[in-house]
Amino acid sequence: MEIGRRDILLGSAALLLAPGGSACAATDRPLGYAIVGLGYYGLNVIIPQFVNCTHSRLAAVVSGDRAKAQRVAREHGLSDKAIYSYADFDTIRDNPDVDIVYVCLPNGMHAEYTIRAARAGKHVLCEKPMAISVAECEAMIAACRKADRKLMIGYRCHFEAHNLEAMRLARSGAAGKIRYVRSEHGFVQRDPTKWRLKRALSGGGSLMDMGIYSLQAARYMTGEEPVAVTARESTDRRDPRFTEVEDMIDWTLEFPSGAMAGCLSMYSANQNRILLMGDTGRIELEPATRYDGNEMWTGKDGRERKIVPPPGPAKTQFAGQLDHMAQSVRRGQEPIVSGEEGLRDMRIVEAIYRSAREGRTIRL
Amino acid sequence: MEIGRRDILLGSAALLLAPGGSACAATDRPLGYAIVGLGYYGLNVIIPQFVNCTHSRLAAVVSGDRAKAQRVAREHGLSDKAIYSYADFDTIRDNPDVDIVYVCLPNGMHAEYTIRAARAGKHVLCEKPMAISVAECEAMIAACRKADRKLMIGYRCHFEAHNLEAMRLARSGAAGKIRYVRSEHGFVQRDPTKWRLKRALSGGGSLMDMGIYSLQAARYMTGEEPVAVTARESTDRRDPRFTEVEDMIDWTLEFPSGAMAGCLSMYSANQNRILLMGDTGRIELEPATRYDGNEMWTGKDGRERKIVPPPGPAKTQFAGQLDHMAQSVRRGQEPIVSGEEGLRDMRIVEAIYRSAREGRTIRL
Repeated sequence: MEIGRRDILLGSAALLLAPGGSACAATDRPLGYAIVGLGYYGLNVIIPQFVNCTHSRLAAVVSGDRAKAQRVAREHGLSDKAIYSYADFDTIRDNPDVDIVYVCLPNGMHAEYTIRAARAGKHVLCEKPMAISVAECEAMIAACRKADRKLMIGYRCHFEAHNLEAMRLARSGAAGKIRYVRSEHGFVQRDPTKWRLKRALSGGGSLMDMGIYSLQAARYMTGEEPVAVTARESTDRRDPRFTEVEDMIDWTLEFPSGAMAGCLSMYSANQNRILLMGDTGRIELEPATRYDGNEMWTGKDGRERKIVPPPGPAKTQFAGQLDHMAQSVRRGQEPIVSGEEGLRDMRIVEAIYRSAREGRTIRL
Repeated sequence: MEIGRRDILLGSAALLLAPGGSACAATDRPLGYAIVGLGYYGLNVIIPQFVNCTHSRLAAVVSGDRAKAQRVAREHGLSDKAIYSYADFDTIRDNPDVDIVYVCLPNGMHAEYTIRAARAGKHVLCEKPMAISVAECEAMIAACRKADRKLMIGYRCHFEAHNLEAMRLARSGAAGKIRYVRSEHGFVQRDPTKWRLKRALSGGGSLMDMGIYSLQAARYMTGEEPVAVTARESTDRRDPRFTEVEDMIDWTLEFPSGAMAGCLSMYSANQNRILLMGDTGRIELEPATRYDGNEMWTGKDGRERKIVPPPGPAKTQFAGQLDHMAQSVRRGQEPIVSGEEGLRDMRIVEAIYRSAREGRTIRL
């Protein structure tokens, strides 16, 4: 492990601070995470992953449900001091055991809790989408910069073995000149009471949920930033699930090389797929971005050869993500999927909605 | 075989006409086809298919290459009287052995030869795309109507077992409510001298070639007519192949039910695929529209179950198409893929080009 001079200085300085400071940077002890939000993702997906981590451990939980928080704390050997409500969240600044706050809340709460965490002196890992507007993303980046804290977005596919191998193959020219990337993500959203269907909490429909995977894939498979977007939406507004947010949205991105991407997200059919077409071959992932069980193929014209990718950076994509943030904090380096990466996506998301609304191509 | 009163009347009338009339309608003898154009498709794909036909036979060839035409005629037991040049094509009116003219010429010549064939009293099967403009399509339909001749477009997928079974499954609700159809067709067009790259002959690039398959699939899989189209194009105009026509074009169709279709055609990557996503399952074909070797799957969320479709209406899709036209002529019925069907596609094609050019959604 490489430790820069600045890390040591910060670590040394931190050692002098008690009790609010953090001594993490100078040692190899796993960094402590506070999980904010004990919904499905935080509770059932993220917390069980700390056993797979090398550099990360669970240090605190933040929840509006005291009984649930106490149960989780007990199960993970945390004391009652490691439990926070949303009201007393800011006192987390006084807990030296917490290095990083992981925001697993609904999208509409990301900005508030990221900014409060940064002001409490904590580094922040925030779930995707980063927030519900460009303005919020900019405020989050500014808050973390002002507090000199790292900010990372939970783009787990950057730690997932199949997606990493697909990116490597695409960059190495395995499919020739990249011409088109297709990415489709959707599932049948059945429950009209889900927070994801309430605009104030979600910021939008399938695009803010599964669509972020399609958009990310278009960018990390081409390795380019889009210069134009053209989008169309189809939503049955009489359907009680879709009174506030969109069901299906389809968009085309244009890249400087001349490559294009066609992306889709929807709440009315199951789909999980990434396909890159080059002039000499193709790279396909299906399922592409699941928690596990992803599969990939390369071929000239179909699914000719199944690829078993080399292992990712950790036992699971989730552990890889948690440990990457911990290592970034320790080394004083920017995470590979920083707040700026989340902001880039949100700029495109706003353009997608605008294009669909106005019925025209939007230059980025 | 059902013979309507009008067929018998026409047949009887025709029997009284000699030598220009046709006696086909009242008998079961296979109808005679003149193949116009001995390029790859006419010569290597269509002519070898008459052995698979029940109601169709080769009766004449039309070519600018006399030696080639003579060789083909000899191989198929035709006399020199069954050979026409483009200059003397109109004298085909005097050949009672020819019932149907099959136009296998470059797109830019479809209108002229369809209209000349109709004026010569022949029924017409014309390759897709029907022509290179809506105006041409309308003139072709008018000419055939005026001559009381049938006009069919060579949409062979309507006679291909996998595509027929996919349409049947889609209509029967096998995938639930249809939400999205994806259709991608492309190949690497390597030879810059191909007529398909010359605008005067082709009318356009990949859209006028492979894109017609994507467009057709979007329509026959949804069973709906689009109400709006939004398209984007990407072409490297410095590439000697693409000085006159487009390489890649991507378009989205919106249907009255709220379903959408995302279509792609390109000359810079190989792809041949149709995918229908419904709210309870999906139907996938890949390859989807090849001359042979097509495959299909149904599933909830991936390629779970391979489908072996029941046989199509004839030994091959080509024989099915030839015999359908022969039967339509005999029965005095409109072919299932008539000139109006070709015109519908061409209206959308013009809207696709216009949308890509203007950067906005075009209402149909």
